[in-house]
Amino acid sequence: MSAYAGVDLGGTKVQSVVVDEGLRVLGSCFMLTPRDRGPAGVIEAIIDAVREALAQAGLSAGGLRSVGIGSPGRIDTVAGTVGHAGNLPEWSGTVPVVPEVAAALGCPVALRGDVQSGVVAEWRLGAGRGFASMLGVFAGTGVGGGIILDGDLWRSHGAAGEVGHMVASNGGRACPCGRFGCLEAYAGRAPMEQEARHRATEGTPTLLFDLMEQMDRTSLTGEVWAAALEQDDLLAAELVAANVEAMGVVLASAVNLLEVDAVVIGGGMGLALGDHYVDRVRASMDEHLVFPENPLTVRLAKLGELAGALGAALAAQEESR
Amino acid sequence: MSAYAGVDLGGTKVQSVVVDEGLRVLGSCFMLTPRDRGPAGVIEAIIDAVREALAQAGLSAGGLRSVGIGSPGRIDTVAGTVGHAGNLPEWSGTVPVVPEVAAALGCPVALRGDVQSGVVAEWRLGAGRGFASMLGVFAGTGVGGGIILDGDLWRSHGAAGEVGHMVASNGGRACPCGRFGCLEAYAGRAPMEQEARHRATEGTPTLLFDLMEQMDRTSLTGEVWAAALEQDDLLAAELVAANVEAMGVVLASAVNLLEVDAVVIGGGMGLALGDHYVDRVRASMDEHLVFPENPLTVRLAKLGELAGALGAALAAQEESR
Repeated sequence: MSAYAGVDLGGTKVQSVVVDEGLRVLGSCFMLTPRDRGPAGVIEAIIDAVREALAQAGLSAGGLRSVGIGSPGRIDTVAGTVGHAGNLPEWSGTVPVVPEVAAALGCPVALRGDVQSGVVAEWRLGAGRGFASMLGVFAGTGVGGGIILDGDLWRSHGAAGEVGHMVASNGGRACPCGRFGCLEAYAGRAPMEQEARHRATEGTPTLLFDLMEQMDRTSLTGEVWAAALEQDDLLAAELVAANVEAMGVVLASAVNLLEVDAVVIGGGMGLALGDHYVDRVRASMDEHLVFPENPLTVRLAKLGELAGALGAALAAQEESR
Repeated sequence: MSAYAGVDLGGTKVQSVVVDEGLRVLGSCFMLTPRDRGPAGVIEAIIDAVREALAQAGLSAGGLRSVGIGSPGRIDTVAGTVGHAGNLPEWSGTVPVVPEVAAALGCPVALRGDVQSGVVAEWRLGAGRGFASMLGVFAGTGVGGGIILDGDLWRSHGAAGEVGHMVASNGGRACPCGRFGCLEAYAGRAPMEQEARHRATEGTPTLLFDLMEQMDRTSLTGEVWAAALEQDDLLAAELVAANVEAMGVVLASAVNLLEVDAVVIGGGMGLALGDHYVDRVRASMDEHLVFPENPLTVRLAKLGELAGALGAALAAQEESR
């Protein structure tokens, strides 16, 4: 039997899966990204997460045909390196992730972008299945995306898909990227939390931070936002409405430009806010679509937290052919 | 010798070219679109424009291998029909343009979108030559566009490339499409003229309409706007600055999404405002590019008023292979 592993590497977590030729999940492992040992600790965690998923699947490393890694930062698929990954600990310069993981596990390793891996997985196995073209938008800490055109991921030179930095409101809210009014400034978890803290400090009443503590979280996760909406928190409602409006502007603009058949919304925020959120984004898009009568499917991602790891496993399978 | 004709059909003009196998222009003809005889008059003008260009080239209709037509409205390339063309006279329902032109000229006829024809021509023969990917933006009466990805026009189901209806300013200026804040509302000749008239009526002083009369025009053409800028007209400067800002927001968003190698700006307004305008758009884009350090060429279209007709001739050549 041929088994493939996929690893979704993030600043918060490392998620691995082991799958068979038909992409059935045989084992998986989730661990927090070690923050105290720099790149060496992160590479060790990748290797451990694959070994643990293999053990769950009842396989040894010898049964592994290839491994895929979906990573943040600047990816060099040929050299197998990851650079400029601000979310990973002490990640200065360019780190040779592929050679080190390949040496430890004794099989070929394919490297991809984290968001692009998730988008490809949703398209091949999830909510985008069967569509010839698709825009995937993953709203987590930040907002990333990927584009499937004519049955292929459009990467260009590797920087395509930055839907999170399309302009939702010219001169608007400050974005973590240093510019103003990007979609991410309204729909990313980190800038939404920053705005909420700022407003709370200024005296706007809100349940958000009480709920965060009650739910035993250290930041405003998607679940905290969902709980606050549930309790009719006015600040949460206002900031989610701004999120919905920014998504509507930018996603409709992208559809006007590309005429994709489907838009799939995922990521921690998207998944936590769920179908009702997706319906609101769709209604907001409708105000800006140049051909609102044209067929367009807008739906929630289906693969949940495994999307990135499954996409990395797909890349592993593809490269070993 | 094999000759091909291309026709750029517009609400104002019909432009034809006849080219050889190597796309050298052998003859061309320009005429105003007849407004008084409905679709039959327009089809007659297409046929006349091809015959006149053939005569200039010293050829008979027998020397014509095929004809391409670039048309506004909704194109059905298979049926050879044009529907929903609001700019063409009395154009209700769907008009069988291809069968009628083919019968009159006795050769195959290919049908394409007008803007897409111009974009393909700029990419194959003009300012976009040699780039693997390109976004073409044609700012004339309205604002249209087309996308070349990996050496091919991305049409999707035929409605891709509506860069003019990407949102530049959510809730902003009314657009002829009925929505608000589209790029076209700021950068299209028709809505810019409407805004200028409105402001002049409200008492804002401007030379625009005096210049229009002096230059013997019936509307604010690109040349009128250029002349007003030349004379430091404050209203013209303000509205062109808003145009530049909207172009910067939308084109940078498109580049962030697609990472194209080049952006080519054409159309009557673009060509009249020239290289200085393109440089200003580029500076405005730089404020919103997520990777401003990545290579990107932004330049003025090169083929001038012949772009659409040459693109249609390219389509004719392609279909007869």
